[in-house]
Amino acid sequence: MSKMQKPEDLLAGVLDGNPRAIARMMSLAESKLPQGRRACADVYHHAGKAHVIGLTGVPGSGKSTMVRALTQEFRKLGKRVGIVAVDPSSPFSGGAILGDRVRMGDLTTDDGVFIRSLATRGALGGLARACLDTVDVLDAAGYDLVLIETVGVGQDEVDIAGSAHSVIVVSAPGLGDGVQAIKAGVLEIADIHAVSKCDRADAGETISDLRSMLHLGLQGRERFGWQVPVIGTSAETGEGIEALASSILSHRGHLDQSGEWPHRQRKIAETRILKSAEDMVRDSLESGRDQNLQALIDQARKRSLDPASAARELIKNLKIYS
Amino acid sequence: MSKMQKPEDLLAGVLDGNPRAIARMMSLAESKLPQGRRACADVYHHAGKAHVIGLTGVPGSGKSTMVRALTQEFRKLGKRVGIVAVDPSSPFSGGAILGDRVRMGDLTTDDGVFIRSLATRGALGGLARACLDTVDVLDAAGYDLVLIETVGVGQDEVDIAGSAHSVIVVSAPGLGDGVQAIKAGVLEIADIHAVSKCDRADAGETISDLRSMLHLGLQGRERFGWQVPVIGTSAETGEGIEALASSILSHRGHLDQSGEWPHRQRKIAETRILKSAEDMVRDSLESGRDQNLQALIDQARKRSLDPASAARELIKNLKIYS
Repeated sequence: MSKMQKPEDLLAGVLDGNPRAIARMMSLAESKLPQGRRACADVYHHAGKAHVIGLTGVPGSGKSTMVRALTQEFRKLGKRVGIVAVDPSSPFSGGAILGDRVRMGDLTTDDGVFIRSLATRGALGGLARACLDTVDVLDAAGYDLVLIETVGVGQDEVDIAGSAHSVIVVSAPGLGDGVQAIKAGVLEIADIHAVSKCDRADAGETISDLRSMLHLGLQGRERFGWQVPVIGTSAETGEGIEALASSILSHRGHLDQSGEWPHRQRKIAETRILKSAEDMVRDSLESGRDQNLQALIDQARKRSLDPASAARELIKNLKIYS
Repeated sequence: MSKMQKPEDLLAGVLDGNPRAIARMMSLAESKLPQGRRACADVYHHAGKAHVIGLTGVPGSGKSTMVRALTQEFRKLGKRVGIVAVDPSSPFSGGAILGDRVRMGDLTTDDGVFIRSLATRGALGGLARACLDTVDVLDAAGYDLVLIETVGVGQDEVDIAGSAHSVIVVSAPGLGDGVQAIKAGVLEIADIHAVSKCDRADAGETISDLRSMLHLGLQGRERFGWQVPVIGTSAETGEGIEALASSILSHRGHLDQSGEWPHRQRKIAETRILKSAEDMVRDSLESGRDQNLQALIDQARKRSLDPASAARELIKNLKIYS
């Protein structure tokens, strides 16, 4: 950031859809700077129009390829598409260490597509919060659809996927993913199941496994009459991609028509607040040079105070940046 | 739980090493019941003697096999070993959906080994807190070593591994894990790198990649003179398992002798407090029938209040169970 820019100019640039302003706003959102927090709040007030789609699945399930194929499909329909990749093994994340957006294949030259990758943060924390703020930037910048790609393991990842309007769980044949998905608590958040690599002979089995699980009622969420579909796709042959894109758009329509929309929005708001609160607790603990806090940590270390009691004290005395 | 038992009897059973009491205490610790929280606090005061070892790596890296081989090695040295498996794809987690402990192969008949698997919780949250409380139960019950197996992706998983005294990052040849590990923020927490499947021809490359990264100084933590080793192992031939076990025990000795121990303990206490605080925020939000909270969620949903401002209000007004 060589040239300084006023926050209001940056916001105006984002609302205008200026790619440089978008990228800078994203970097600010990812940072833990106070001006980053204020910028996120501004962006939040201007977001809320995009259809946010979460794609989740274990490494090797073919998520990235599916994101790419779906993006091409949505572009044919004239939609502008934002992509936020959180999976460290995603090819979209190639530049994640440098914190830069990267582009992939023929999406490179398309001005209607914006790709951002987020490195998972390890001990730094705050991934889910940063990811959802990044989605807001694309939303405020006028992208019609925002695709979030996450690996389907871990609390943050499940929370991120669960914060989308339409959640696609991606399974590949032969990985035993069906069972993995149940165990990881991901099945319950799927609005649509997509099975990749359906040119393979064993894809039928994966599809029927998923259908059986759905018949057993392992759906989790109340769905307001939405029947969770299982859609076979192949990036090789192009099979099923149009059906998947169409099902995603139908799901958005269903949310509106069924009356599920306010419930879903509410749940998403809850997750957003939760993730922000977790971030504040974490930041306060990590930056805490506070005597009181140091004493709590010391007592916990010596096992004279248990973590829950220490946490209660921490929360009571939390110093929150505003 | 057909028969009720007084909490103090249950604790006494755990301290005696009674397997039924241990299993019941773990179920209580995993629950969100108030008596579970009190039980965890009691257990915490009696824990702190075990050497806690975290093994982390992506699915397919051979963690479970390594946990098994290490356990056999430690048993030869007369150590009692507890195992907590958090990876949903682990064979140890076979019974995770039923919430039961499972056993594997020849560890089944060994009274010096206790295996517990934790299902990842998806939207329920609290995995890291529950896992670390489970470790405490094994610690208080007198297990000399507790091995935690987690998949190396996701905030909770990194936090869990980072709460061990000795962190082993497991990589397999040919998976490109080295790079994945850096990106996932896992490299920085490794005290020891173990490379599995070293009977394979391409294992040498993985080992040298990891060594190069270490030479580049990508170690993260301050290590008080500890040189992070890269150890090749093979479950097939048994190669390297003894060296790995020995390196783990050396690392524990290093923590003591170098003066790192109090720092490490402090960091672990911080993580424990953080995870408990996060749990409280999550529980409060999820169970919150509170008018004030409902109003905050509604404002956030309508985008008239941003998540960070709502989170600040939430924390100020948090009702915490005690």
